[in-house]
Amino acid sequence: MLFAVKMDVALPTDLDPTVRDETLAREKAYSQELQRGGEWVSIWRCVGKYSNLSIFDVRDNERLHEILWGLPLFRFMSIEVTPLATHPSDIRA
Amino acid sequence: MLFAVKMDVALPTDLDPTVRDETLAREKAYSQELQRGGEWVSIWRCVGKYSNLSIFDVRDNERLHEILWGLPLFRFMSIEVTPLATHPSDIRA
Amino acid sequence: MLFAVKMDVALPTDLDPTVRDETLAREKAYSQELQRGGEWVSIWRCVGKYSNLSIFDVRDNERLHEILWGLPLFRFMSIEVTPLATHPSDIRA
Amino acid sequence: MLFAVKMDVALPTDLDPTVRDETLAREKAYSQELQRGGEWVSIWRCVGKYSNLSIFDVRDNERLHEILWGLPLFRFMSIEVTPLATHPSDIRA
Amino acid sequence: MLFAVKMDVALPTDLDPTVRDETLAREKAYSQELQRGGEWVSIWRCVGKYSNLSIFDVRDNERLHEILWGLPLFRFMSIEVTPLATHPSDIRA
Amino acid sequence: MLFAVKMDVALPTDLDPTVRDETLAREKAYSQELQRGGEWVSIWRCVGKYSNLSIFDVRDNERLHEILWGLPLFRFMSIEVTPLATHPSDIRA
Amino acid sequence: MLFAVKMDVALPTDLDPTVRDETLAREKAYSQELQRGGEWVSIWRCVGKYSNLSIFDVRDNERLHEILWGLPLFRFMSIEVTPLATHPSDIRA
Amino acid sequence: MLFAVKMDVALPTDLDPTVRDETLAREKAYSQELQRGGEWVSIWRCVGKYSNLSIFDVRDNERLHEILWGLPLFRFMSIEVTPLATHPSDIRA
Amino acid sequence: MLFAVKMDVALPTDLDPTVRDETLAREKAYSQELQRGGEWVSIWRCVGKYSNLSIFDVRDNERLHEILWGLPLFRFMSIEVTPLATHPSDIRA
Amino acid sequence: MLFAVKMDVALPTDLDPTVRDETLAREKAYSQELQRGGEWVSIWRCVGKYSNLSIFDVRDNERLHEILWGLPLFRFMSIEVTPLATHPSDIRA
Repeated sequence: MLFAVKMDVALPTDLDPTVRDETLAREKAYSQELQRGGEWVSIWRCVGKYSNLSIFDVRDNERLHEILWGLPLFRFMSIEVTPLATHPSDIRA
Repeated sequence: MLFAVKMDVALPTDLDPTVRDETLAREKAYSQELQRGGEWVSIWRCVGKYSNLSIFDVRDNERLHEILWGLPLFRFMSIEVTPLATHPSDIRA
Repeated sequence: MLFAVKMDVALPTDLDPTVRDETLAREKAYSQELQRGGEWVSIWRCVGKYSNLSIFDVRDNERLHEILWGLPLFRFMSIEVTPLATHPSDIRA
Repeated sequence: MLFAVKMDVALPTDLDPTVRDETLAREKAYSQELQRGGEWVSIWRCVGKYSNLSIFDVRDNERLHEILWGLPLFRFMSIEVTPLATHPSDIRA
Repeated sequence: MLFAVKMDVALPTDLDPTVRDETLAREKAYSQELQRGGEWVSIWRCVGKYSNLSIFDVRDNERLHEILWGLPLFRFMSIEVTPLATHPSDIRA
Repeated sequence: MLFAVKMDVALPTDLDPTVRDETLAREKAYSQELQRGGEWVSIWRCVGKYSNLSIFDVRDNERLHEILWGLPLFRFMSIEVTPLATHPSDIRA
Repeated sequence: MLFAVKMDVALPTDLDPTVRDETLAREKAYSQELQRGGEWVSIWRCVGKYSNLSIFDVRDNERLHEILWGLPLFRFMSIEVTPLATHPSDIRA
Repeated sequence: MLFAVKMDVALPTDLDPTVRDETLAREKAYSQELQRGGEWVSIWRCVGKYSNLSIFDVRDNERLHEILWGLPLFRFMSIEVTPLATHPSDIRA
Repeated sequence: MLFAVKMDVALPTDLDPTVRDETLAREKAYSQELQRGGEWVSIWRCVGKYSNLSIFDVRDNERLHEILWGLPLFRFMSIEVTPLATHPSDIRA
Repeated sequence: MLFAVKMDVALPTDLDPTVRDETLAREKAYSQELQRGGEWVSIWRCVGKYSNLSIFDVRDNERLHEILWGLPLFRFMSIEVTPLATHPSDIRA
């Protein structure tokens, strides 16, 4: 089941650099593990912003929330979730 | 070069049914030809809305505008374009 | 899988009364059939508005879109979908 | 009398962890007591957000405000209240 | 139980003058009957706008919706409802 | 001359408790004195919010600003002012 | 008593040209009479818009509403009213 | 004196095709004459939209308004004007 | 050349009182000097807000930016600038 | 390939003056090097704001993001990117 997820990151400007670097490293590892597992299908940077647009393919709403809530950057993010369905013009449908 | 494009359709409620059906058929053919050509990479329906979220992979801004301007439904749509770049956490990067 | 759905209705002020009445009757029957089937769990009127707040319990995103797209009033509605998950404070969880 | 209530939580990123944990524990107990008492009818997590959507069934506006004002997280929340009424299509009406 | 209600009127510019005058007369009679009955406590014009701010004192949400839905101008209005409670600084409380 | 005034309070979460309590006590006294004097006609709590909706009856704009600027909580508030006039349907007009 | 008033005009694109010209002529005469009378103190065009920003000096809220409601273009306008007071830095104060 | 001007065009979907074509031809001629005269410095299409972003270099506000008000498409446009000044990092400054 | 300028002030609630008082004194002197010089034509307080609406009459955009950038309160302000032109109904035009 | 980029700067009011000055100096040098290289085509100050409007001419989306992400002020900025295409009325097209 597909979802588009837009994540906007706002790190506090006075965040401790060590905490920041460690959090960013954990975020990257977390994302890449889910990408390898096939649930985090795509991730793109939005040009000029500390934001990403991602596509998730998950079992259900519960699983999507579990993934997003577990993001190491979650407390610095605002997140918008858009449920997706098959488009009638999709040639792969 | 990748772009996320959100298209919201608002057909006038008094649109002639023949014009509507003919326009929708042309829209579908137009989209599918671009999907087969590789420029319209993905198209999803946004649940509960007469909207789609699409990913385009095009040569440049000029080509993207040419495609969108040529949509048979263009005059009934409002469109938001988000330029995308590689995300540092993308395992395919 | 649960979703909150907010539906705002805007009937054109010049809509033919026969079309209006027939559409509203079909809308009611459509909603009640889905309520009886267990997928349209709750429907409330938002006070002072031609709007409802509903809870759906459906198989997946595809099914939710199929239901909403099929609403007889769909072309007069704007709809917002919020995917829901279990809250850790829910005593029924 | 029914109300939909959307609560968005924004904990300060520098909140003392002990204060945070103690406040969250009190919030959970407070919510569950009201759920058991029948006034806090439903609570769902909004996917990807530190937010909940809840349904309250209370005596009147005064009681709803008393409940919400007393939330241990109240000073970290923004809250939207929507009064609900019976929908004419509701099969339970 | 008190509610603040903001009503914004948007008459179609091509509304038949006879329909308009008859609707406005019914609206005035409807409002004044509810004022005399004590449920429509106050009504003020918002300066420079085709809008009013009103205070209602009603039994419950159901009654408020019944009143608002029955407004002769309802289909030309957008309405915002704010539930009110006693303020701790109110000298009449 | 009547005005509707909406006041939203946002106390800093790290405000010194003594300062907070002393300011709130002064705010209450200030409001009640103006209520007794007849200029602050009504004050209601907006359910679920740290906000009030008030009606003022003052000599002119200057006096209203003088009152609002003098609120002990003014620096923690955002305020919206709506000038009111007699509504033609008002039975007291 | 001073007010800033922003008026945005939206003439229907299918308005009868005779009606339009006659209404605009009446609007101009109406405005100029109030300017000569000293109540409509200033009127400026907002560059690039069918809008004006005006300053009114009137007896009270009632009079301001009477003036604005009577504008020949009123039903094609949306209007925002800002009550003004003396600024402590004003050298004329 | 420089201004950035964003123009969004919304042609009525039922506009007579002859009127549309004639208006668009006049718009193009009008724009190109001002470009040749040096006042309309740049014009770009915003990708995916019936909009342009333009830079004007004009004598003063009066002249800019005169130009924009005279656009053949003016009554179908909404326009935002941003006054520009020299940036301290500009190497041409 | 005329401009309407709206300035909203947001002093940090923990600003040092000495810095605040000294800054406010400089702001007042700065404003009054420009008022005496004829460039800052009018300044009004917006009722109930820490805001002013001002009219400037300046040589060009560069001069207006120079004035606003130099405001002692600039770093605590958000500012909206509206270029003004002569209105065809202005009796002084 | 052209892009319009709007950058709004919000320096923390308690930023260390040395850090601020050093960052602003690096920002200026960074911008001017890209201007000399031909990628940062234009930069204008938006009157009355700590903002600029810029035009970039870059190879692709990746390059634009690389430039913007590298801005010394990036973490204090919010940035909006608008992809541009040739306008059919452009006399240089």
